[in-house]
Amino acid sequence: MTETHELLTAAVRRLIDATIRTEVDSTAIAAATERIEAATAHLSESLLPGSFGVQTGPDGHPIAWGNVVIGIRNPVAPPLAVHHGTDGVVHTDFILGAAYEGPPGHVHGGVCAMILDHVLGATAHQPGKPAVTGTLTLRYLRGTPLGRPLRAQAHVERIEGAKTFAVGHIAGPGGITVEAEGVFIHPKRGRADG
Amino acid sequence: MTETHELLTAAVRRLIDATIRTEVDSTAIAAATERIEAATAHLSESLLPGSFGVQTGPDGHPIAWGNVVIGIRNPVAPPLAVHHGTDGVVHTDFILGAAYEGPPGHVHGGVCAMILDHVLGATAHQPGKPAVTGTLTLRYLRGTPLGRPLRAQAHVERIEGAKTFAVGHIAGPGGITVEAEGVFIHPKRGRADG
Repeated sequence: MTETHELLTAAVRRLIDATIRTEVDSTAIAAATERIEAATAHLSESLLPGSFGVQTGPDGHPIAWGNVVIGIRNPVAPPLAVHHGTDGVVHTDFILGAAYEGPPGHVHGGVCAMILDHVLGATAHQPGKPAVTGTLTLRYLRGTPLGRPLRAQAHVERIEGAKTFAVGHIAGPGGITVEAEGVFIHPKRGRADG
Repeated sequence: MTETHELLTAAVRRLIDATIRTEVDSTAIAAATERIEAATAHLSESLLPGSFGVQTGPDGHPIAWGNVVIGIRNPVAPPLAVHHGTDGVVHTDFILGAAYEGPPGHVHGGVCAMILDHVLGATAHQPGKPAVTGTLTLRYLRGTPLGRPLRAQAHVERIEGAKTFAVGHIAGPGGITVEAEGVFIHPKRGRADG
């Protein structure tokens, strides 16, 4: 089931890219729209109310398959695979296509902010105890290219009580493109930020 | 052509939502995947190389239809319609669904950062002379709900040479959720950031 669903999500990601870049005529676009509407109608025969949320996976671990950054069932997510190193460094390698564009040929600065929020926040996450963003500061050094290998990484600078201070950056073939620092908080309970 | 393409993009947005929320069985998912792949194949018979970029519209104005925040041909974009008031305030009203989730039932903090980057930056944009992000600082006050009306707004605090200092926030039914301040720069030329 999970694998079938991942194939669906991957197919929708390719469709998103083609939707942006297609140059076929109106008749062909209308025909594609009909096919897509039929697919949506079938998938909508049974829908979760609201959003995916965080569910408990078959192995008992929390799963965030709808998450906009890492969700394997969310076609908007690249999705990032975030790795936690033994040295405390969190990192993720990725390439972003046409769907994440801001300035021509470049990743939108806001997408860089979104990724850094997630990756810096991941340094503070603990199983079943997510951290939420308190503050986040970004410095943009140069453009982040579309279609080129990128890495985002972060580490904890210090911890004070419920606050984790993290720093990190995104780098591409030309060096660091965006630097970030942030404070992430373990909420007492019932608060849902970040 | 534009209208037909907007209908396609709107259909893909509904598909994204159904992909995340569907609970139909594997057979139905596989059938939907096949339909989607057929649509993608037809749309891919003629594709722009790379990304949409910024093109010149029929009326001579620049169009950013592939932009991840405002692009009317980008299914990842909500898309935001950004309004420039006569009082210098830039604002946009929107509702975000399951595709933008971070904490359960809430907008991902990184999506809030993305939107504020764009809306604060819009205060500095001039026709044919986009501004890029220099720095951006975000303060998260409370969770931003999915499925509820939200407004992002920003205004210029001061201008120093090529630098525009802007402030703004996102607010929902429960008040301001995220505050932001940023510095946006008109690059001399050839630089593509933000």
